[in-house]
Amino acid sequence: VQIEILTTGDELLEGAISDTNASYLAHELHMLGLSVQRITTVGDQLEELSETISQISARASLCIITGGLGPTSDDLTLDALALSAGVSLEVDDALWSEIQLRYAKRGRIPPTNRRQARVPEGGAPLRSEVGTAPGMRLQVGSCVFYAYPGVPSELRWHVSQSLIPALRSRQSREVSQLVWRVGSLGESALQERLNALQDQLRLAPDLRVGYQALGSEVRLKLSSSDAVALHQVIPALREALGGHLVSEEDEPLERVLLHELKRQGLTLGCAESCTGGAISAKMTKTPGSSIAFLGGVVAYSNDVKRALLGVTEETLTSFGAVSAECAGEMATGAREALGVDWAISVTGVAGPGGGSDIKPVGTVYFGWAGPEGCRVSHMLWAGGRAQVQSRSVYYALHELLKMIQEQTT
Amino acid sequence: VQIEILTTGDELLEGAISDTNASYLAHELHMLGLSVQRITTVGDQLEELSETISQISARASLCIITGGLGPTSDDLTLDALALSAGVSLEVDDALWSEIQLRYAKRGRIPPTNRRQARVPEGGAPLRSEVGTAPGMRLQVGSCVFYAYPGVPSELRWHVSQSLIPALRSRQSREVSQLVWRVGSLGESALQERLNALQDQLRLAPDLRVGYQALGSEVRLKLSSSDAVALHQVIPALREALGGHLVSEEDEPLERVLLHELKRQGLTLGCAESCTGGAISAKMTKTPGSSIAFLGGVVAYSNDVKRALLGVTEETLTSFGAVSAECAGEMATGAREALGVDWAISVTGVAGPGGGSDIKPVGTVYFGWAGPEGCRVSHMLWAGGRAQVQSRSVYYALHELLKMIQEQTT
Repeated sequence: VQIEILTTGDELLEGAISDTNASYLAHELHMLGLSVQRITTVGDQLEELSETISQISARASLCIITGGLGPTSDDLTLDALALSAGVSLEVDDALWSEIQLRYAKRGRIPPTNRRQARVPEGGAPLRSEVGTAPGMRLQVGSCVFYAYPGVPSELRWHVSQSLIPALRSRQSREVSQLVWRVGSLGESALQERLNALQDQLRLAPDLRVGYQALGSEVRLKLSSSDAVALHQVIPALREALGGHLVSEEDEPLERVLLHELKRQGLTLGCAESCTGGAISAKMTKTPGSSIAFLGGVVAYSNDVKRALLGVTEETLTSFGAVSAECAGEMATGAREALGVDWAISVTGVAGPGGGSDIKPVGTVYFGWAGPEGCRVSHMLWAGGRAQVQSRSVYYALHELLKMIQEQTT
Repeated sequence: VQIEILTTGDELLEGAISDTNASYLAHELHMLGLSVQRITTVGDQLEELSETISQISARASLCIITGGLGPTSDDLTLDALALSAGVSLEVDDALWSEIQLRYAKRGRIPPTNRRQARVPEGGAPLRSEVGTAPGMRLQVGSCVFYAYPGVPSELRWHVSQSLIPALRSRQSREVSQLVWRVGSLGESALQERLNALQDQLRLAPDLRVGYQALGSEVRLKLSSSDAVALHQVIPALREALGGHLVSEEDEPLERVLLHELKRQGLTLGCAESCTGGAISAKMTKTPGSSIAFLGGVVAYSNDVKRALLGVTEETLTSFGAVSAECAGEMATGAREALGVDWAISVTGVAGPGGGSDIKPVGTVYFGWAGPEGCRVSHMLWAGGRAQVQSRSVYYALHELLKMIQEQTT
């Protein structure tokens, strides 16, 4: 099966937005065990679009198109499909009634939306529960085209609800998938650990491994046509990943940590210097976080460290704000001031300025104050200010997760 | 001039990463007044790559290629170019010496890097000050191909240092450009304001307008071949944008605000409930922010609001944590606790839970406490949790900027 993707829209050719639809589609197809040969992007011009569809139909047997199904005159995907297939394009009255009904809740439907009810001869409209634009399936030459709206949420609905099930059923065997989250381990280090497992992984037929880097976390996907063999690989995978395995259910670190805090009935707060509020912001992005996360202090200046966290003058003058001593006092001070079970502290040199020979840019001290005392550690991160900050945020939360998980096992 | 972009790499066809190189190139070309007709992505296969190059050379007069110039055997861009052009591909000894010299600082050069010194007959290597892979210019048929490394920082160096100047000099006239930042105004509302200026804008020849949405901010680019006419449009543009104009020098809000605080010798802190530290995080992302931004309190729970910000029990029971009264006490409390000239407070219902008939999800109260007292206001935002949070962050900082700018004018 030769598979191609065609995305349309002047905004893509003008670089106003990145083509996330193409990468989303490519990833979903890849994880189904299907390879995409080519991705093409063209603008909202009928001739160019139709010429591209004709060229693809001569090469491929399956093509996914996104965009150009809206109600305005520059939405030309249906016109181009009909032109390339050499068939007529007429309004389907039943489809038009459906679209009107769907639109009724939002008010009067503009007459231009009638364009969206057109169906090329031989085409099959693809109904959607989101948005008003139906998709369209049409064979041109020996290639089957699936055209979907370019609005990401509508595209995702079509793909997950209709395209993937349809492609799965065409494949000889069902594909099983694992989606895990791995933390504090780079993509290449993760690849190396998986390469070391090659012999075991080979037991799962047609195994596909996908990596998606999301900041300090990697989304690791494994798929195979043999569910049992895939699940037999799990113990070896778990061992190879060790403490880096954050979730076996595709949950990001902050959610896993919140679940664990809630499960144990623990509360959390933090005292941040060089991460400047980013730990709090990460935790509070998650809905319902207020049950476990009570608050934090962003102590960017020494005055704030003293006044709100009780860091002593002696510590600041003898060891400096970037020190194990200061991190410890910040964590225990925050634990008391915020009235929480666990408090995290971070103080360091994020750069680009402020570094010295002894404490170069990237030096960061951490404290974790809990019911049984306070642990302090430090790291020297490579990278620029944004990287030092985001790595520190991830590390501080990841270490805490491991500490509270250990206490219960 | 028919222009195309060709990006290469299996990782793009597998959807492991989004193709930001293509959108970057498309945007840069668009702002030069050049239109891209087509973007194609293919994998690391010689035949497919060479076939695509041949097809493009039959259609286009200029094509930018990214990727496939690395030292490994799946880096095939030079091979494919030579194959399509029907020319030989041989190591250029002078280029090889240069690469070795450049590599010397990092250690012993792997022998596989010799591939990067190959030059197709008739091709011109494009030297770079970053990375080790040179780019390559080669004419195939009537199309000139510029091939650059896929590493974004290396691509950007080539494009800004060599491609754009080369394309500018080919154009009959110099292109002048304005890059502004516009805040708290959606892309379509911004477009409407510019449409209302059409008569004035038409005075600038070949005017191109580009929009890039970056969260609550839009990067507005205007280019024209007539610098004088473009600059004559500025007063009308300024008036049309009013307080929404954040920067005329492509600076994001937080930088503009920091400059203004520093200029006036003012310090800033904040007290955040529903934004959970995101205001502090946004401010401290900017290097050198510690001069003006001293710290903050993330008061997610009522206990923290009372203990660290001095919010009264009476306010919390009579009006609730999401109220103008609480926002006011949080701001004045933070101003005192943090010892700053200005303190911002935010308290609201970010959702998805916690809303009521009187205070639905999206209700957010703000306070700005300064030397002359405290201002309080509130907003009802549409959208989900992430949008309510990010809009609140932007609004709180943007309003403060306008307040301190007004005090000096």
